[in-house]
Amino acid sequence: MTIFATVAAFETALASLPSADAHARAAAVARQNQLTKPQGSLGRLEEIAGFLAGWQGRAVPRVDRARAAVFAGNHGVVARGVSAFPASVTAQMVGNFEAGGAAINAVARAAGLELVVIPIDLDRATADFTEGPAMSEADCLAALKAGAAVVDSGLDLLVLGEMGIGNSTAAAALCARSFGGDGRDWVGRGTGVDDDGLMRKVAAVDAALATHDGAPVTAFETLRRVGGREIVAIAGAVLAARMAGVVVVLDGFICCSAVAPLAASAPDIVAHCIAGHRSVEPGHKRLLDRIALEPLLALDMRLGEGSGAALAVGVIRAAVAVHAEMATFAEAGVSAA
Amino acid sequence: MTIFATVAAFETALASLPSADAHARAAAVARQNQLTKPQGSLGRLEEIAGFLAGWQGRAVPRVDRARAAVFAGNHGVVARGVSAFPASVTAQMVGNFEAGGAAINAVARAAGLELVVIPIDLDRATADFTEGPAMSEADCLAALKAGAAVVDSGLDLLVLGEMGIGNSTAAAALCARSFGGDGRDWVGRGTGVDDDGLMRKVAAVDAALATHDGAPVTAFETLRRVGGREIVAIAGAVLAARMAGVVVVLDGFICCSAVAPLAASAPDIVAHCIAGHRSVEPGHKRLLDRIALEPLLALDMRLGEGSGAALAVGVIRAAVAVHAEMATFAEAGVSAA
Repeated sequence: MTIFATVAAFETALASLPSADAHARAAAVARQNQLTKPQGSLGRLEEIAGFLAGWQGRAVPRVDRARAAVFAGNHGVVARGVSAFPASVTAQMVGNFEAGGAAINAVARAAGLELVVIPIDLDRATADFTEGPAMSEADCLAALKAGAAVVDSGLDLLVLGEMGIGNSTAAAALCARSFGGDGRDWVGRGTGVDDDGLMRKVAAVDAALATHDGAPVTAFETLRRVGGREIVAIAGAVLAARMAGVVVVLDGFICCSAVAPLAASAPDIVAHCIAGHRSVEPGHKRLLDRIALEPLLALDMRLGEGSGAALAVGVIRAAVAVHAEMATFAEAGVSAA
Repeated sequence: MTIFATVAAFETALASLPSADAHARAAAVARQNQLTKPQGSLGRLEEIAGFLAGWQGRAVPRVDRARAAVFAGNHGVVARGVSAFPASVTAQMVGNFEAGGAAINAVARAAGLELVVIPIDLDRATADFTEGPAMSEADCLAALKAGAAVVDSGLDLLVLGEMGIGNSTAAAALCARSFGGDGRDWVGRGTGVDDDGLMRKVAAVDAALATHDGAPVTAFETLRRVGGREIVAIAGAVLAARMAGVVVVLDGFICCSAVAPLAASAPDIVAHCIAGHRSVEPGHKRLLDRIALEPLLALDMRLGEGSGAALAVGVIRAAVAVHAEMATFAEAGVSAA
């Protein structure tokens, strides 16, 4: 997409985000208030219906074409001992996604989602960002484009997820560089490191903050310096989805960290996003508070792959079903309060 | 069912609750720990799989036959001005359920649930429990039996819900009589009463507590004195499901209040129950804490009808799908940590 042809085009797109259709949203809210239930009694289901109506530009939204896109990348920072798993697991899990055996396969099937898996240069890890930028400008633009490529303006919903051994350290670095704080503020156990691993993660983030101190803190530079290809691709998908009016469902800490550099300069970037869930990774709550998203689910998950976001699609589908299928007080002959 | 032939049979059943199959549960946990994900990273989805395995007695549980049962009843206490809606709405909403136009219809369809609607003597409201027992012994036993009738040992899952104008006042009275506290501790706005209505609800509960002070506080007597037919039916369904080894998904405050009198004498009664959601009715959180159930969802809902419980079935289905369909580390050739 042309919005990622150059760094300047990316920054321009981020500075001119389109809005939802206020008329469609208002029409959806008016319909909700006629349905056979006390007003507001369906809580967040009512909000979701209005939210989707606004972004889809129709009073009765739908979730017919829904896609889950899972991006994968490898990270130079893994050399610092920041993960409980070896880097080879990234490619092995991509194989598992392609064979249909991972959690996201089962959850996507249950949620009626088309699943697309996008490994990005797995044989070429990013550079260790504790020592310098993770990516060149060209590599970062390429990852943004890979993300944008999963967006199609005919989609009703886009679920985003990631796989990349070591990427919870990149996520913590992205958050710290976007919103302040240090390693201790943003690091957690990820897939399950022990106490020593946790200290190595904190040290890696702090080293990255020192290395890049003084460098520009634009969205692009933050992504390029301390991100990873799969995370940058998610950022690209979020921005491209916004340009196309497609609602995005975000997954856990790492997925949401892709939005942090964008939100630091353009807080409205999350206006078309739903936080599918809150993971147990402690930085996730802090990040969701910072970007002002209230998660739909909180089920003590910490897997990634888009699994929490895909699970939330069941709630979103129910919201749409209720909105489209319920009778009004007049239709049902029920007395309003 | 014979467990409800007499009051004594009911109390005997409650005193001799069957347990889950520990072997099936352990086998499910062992399988979870071989699946291609960090151990524990699917959080409550893993718990649910083990929980269902134990109650279904199979290492790989399923949700093929799943039913939502919605009971309806009318309440004499409505004469005290405790609801924003007239009592006639109970029957009107039953008509709406039968015509397919209510929220529970849409949510049940989305969740793949068979929906059964059981109105119980709608033309004969219970007696006003601020003045005396809501039901005779025979009426209360009949309501228990109506609840048990929706249980079938071939079911994989049973979702319970209710409709009954005025029943959030009965729910508050049941909780107060079961666990202590007064009207102010357990009353909320229900379908949306104003401040005056709220005061009338508190007064009705306090009057009921005074009227029945000194009466026996057995599960049966509490249900009979301050319950309602649809709530008693839910209590009957919960107990009958336990005898049949069928997992129950509970809905909001009113649905859970049916369990309160049972749990007061037999805390283990909720061992086969999942709290589908936490509603915004403030007594619900207090009640869930008291019966030690952690809700799956918390989406600011307050409709009843089983809508929150039915919505949670999507999460339960995903838990079962993940458990049954995921590859193990060995099958997928993925390195374990």
